[in-house]
Amino acid sequence: MSLKNDLILRAAKGEKTERTPVWLMRQAGRVLPEYREVRAKMGGFKELVETPEFACEVTIQPVDILGVDAAIIFSDILVIPEAMGLPYQMVEAKGPWFEKTIKSKADIDQLRIAHPEDLHYVIDAIKLTKKELNGRVPLIGFAGAPWTIFAYMIEGSGSKTFSKAKKFLYTNPELSHLLLQKITDSTINYLKGQIVAGADMLQLFDSWAGILSPEQYNQFSLKYISQICDAINEVPMTVFAKDAHFARRDMGKLNCNTIGLDWTMDIVESREMIGPNKTLQGNMDPCLLYADYETIKKETIKMLKAFGPNRHIANLGHGLYPDLEKDKVKCYVDTIKEFRF
Amino acid sequence: MSLKNDLILRAAKGEKTERTPVWLMRQAGRVLPEYREVRAKMGGFKELVETPEFACEVTIQPVDILGVDAAIIFSDILVIPEAMGLPYQMVEAKGPWFEKTIKSKADIDQLRIAHPEDLHYVIDAIKLTKKELNGRVPLIGFAGAPWTIFAYMIEGSGSKTFSKAKKFLYTNPELSHLLLQKITDSTINYLKGQIVAGADMLQLFDSWAGILSPEQYNQFSLKYISQICDAINEVPMTVFAKDAHFARRDMGKLNCNTIGLDWTMDIVESREMIGPNKTLQGNMDPCLLYADYETIKKETIKMLKAFGPNRHIANLGHGLYPDLEKDKVKCYVDTIKEFRF
Repeated sequence: MSLKNDLILRAAKGEKTERTPVWLMRQAGRVLPEYREVRAKMGGFKELVETPEFACEVTIQPVDILGVDAAIIFSDILVIPEAMGLPYQMVEAKGPWFEKTIKSKADIDQLRIAHPEDLHYVIDAIKLTKKELNGRVPLIGFAGAPWTIFAYMIEGSGSKTFSKAKKFLYTNPELSHLLLQKITDSTINYLKGQIVAGADMLQLFDSWAGILSPEQYNQFSLKYISQICDAINEVPMTVFAKDAHFARRDMGKLNCNTIGLDWTMDIVESREMIGPNKTLQGNMDPCLLYADYETIKKETIKMLKAFGPNRHIANLGHGLYPDLEKDKVKCYVDTIKEFRF
Repeated sequence: MSLKNDLILRAAKGEKTERTPVWLMRQAGRVLPEYREVRAKMGGFKELVETPEFACEVTIQPVDILGVDAAIIFSDILVIPEAMGLPYQMVEAKGPWFEKTIKSKADIDQLRIAHPEDLHYVIDAIKLTKKELNGRVPLIGFAGAPWTIFAYMIEGSGSKTFSKAKKFLYTNPELSHLLLQKITDSTINYLKGQIVAGADMLQLFDSWAGILSPEQYNQFSLKYISQICDAINEVPMTVFAKDAHFARRDMGKLNCNTIGLDWTMDIVESREMIGPNKTLQGNMDPCLLYADYETIKKETIKMLKAFGPNRHIANLGHGLYPDLEKDKVKCYVDTIKEFRF
């Protein structure tokens, strides 16, 4: 089925576009009252993720309500550790919590390599969403980058420092590589399954990139991201490594189309570091959307001009915060859609 | 009284030193069993901060036990908001909590400009520690950078995103500047008082630097750090802005002696960005100290060589984590003290 709006795919491939396309990380979420209604009907976050009909419904909401140029499947990066054998709970107001964590080689040996069948609820949600979207906009699939998944599997929950996970890297480098490779193999299987199900584009989220040193990041994160990028050639791929300012030059060499930037990364400097052959995605501070409409418009246009007319997919530098006002978010999207160079 | 070991002061001023000097952020703390003993006798963290005899005792412990080249007065950056009229509690395992936060101009108007008399317990602790140190090593005084103090005064506690504080910047820029100026004036008074009491060197901690955009950082943080640096000329000054990779070039222009680096900042690149006229401090990942002794030594020497023989004060890129082993910490310190270029 051909897409009625393929701006994001063309921008990812470096083709000229009539205007800058836009989508927002966490666009399907609490910022929309319509999402909160669906959420209230369900038991919780995981039930929503695991029920294709509802995941599909909230995935499409921001396309209807905010007018974004892509949908991103409503899911969670932690479905991979669960599919590998580490179930987790999403504790309200606290975040993810794993009953079992990885401590030894035996723990790693017990993990399965995940396959799309293990994640049939995501695959089904993608198929259903593709059908329901009916070609209006592309559907983005995603996974966590191996280091970020590793960090949760060792730490067992969120953390300010992820010092348990980092301790594991420093004290068990061989076991770390063993685990990272298993996560990588699972992730490649999973992403290939998402493509078969209909994902038009993929994104890797390396949420905890910024707590590693440049050397450790190369060794324990980029190495595996690179394997994934090399394995996926069917659809455009985006890598978003939050806070990994130090890795921008190396990310320019990845076999992917788009690099995500956060708002601490200067746009012109990042372009210089990453080079001309990647599309850049981002990078507004989500907190700008707390400001008045005039400030939002002014700063958004400033951002668009800094990125320039080509090879830019507008987004935020992080996910939407749940207490932002829907109308302010829409103002950001509309300003981008109305702007012409 | 002349100092028997003034390596750190000479390194800060750019003078040649026989070896690289070293101290560690949070060197007086839970990593030392001797600290935990004193802590167990006291009611809590704040009682320790507010009792000069005990603050003095734990300040000197790492000089005796770890052999570091400086003591840093045991205190807390949040004594300033308290002295200005916002008392706080340190909640075990949770962190700071303010009953009252800043929401309006009236709240800001009610705040006092702090003076050293309001913080007599810190001043007394500095005087006592100087006497007890008896010139063995320099004593470092410190304060939070205005933006970081502002962030706590608005947010009322720690936060992953400090989105309330950032919302205040975006929605009330004028009030933000009013509050930041009051904090700055209080901080200058306080640091001058620390110098009079005997502090040989000062450090500003901008712990939440990394969550601002480069532009906001210039406007709402560096502007006030710069005022403080300009006001303090009596002793060497260090500015440590955690995660503010984007501000390195501008920090090179501050009227201070030393810039602190965290471990995500490449050493050679940082030197190039900051220029030759500043001493650099840091920057090992504290998690390295979980590794085996051989790895600690190898990585420490690699770090020393990357910084080179001059204009370097060895430290970590963040404070010591409480669960590190004392002997591994000592291995880091000893490796630095034994190394010769």
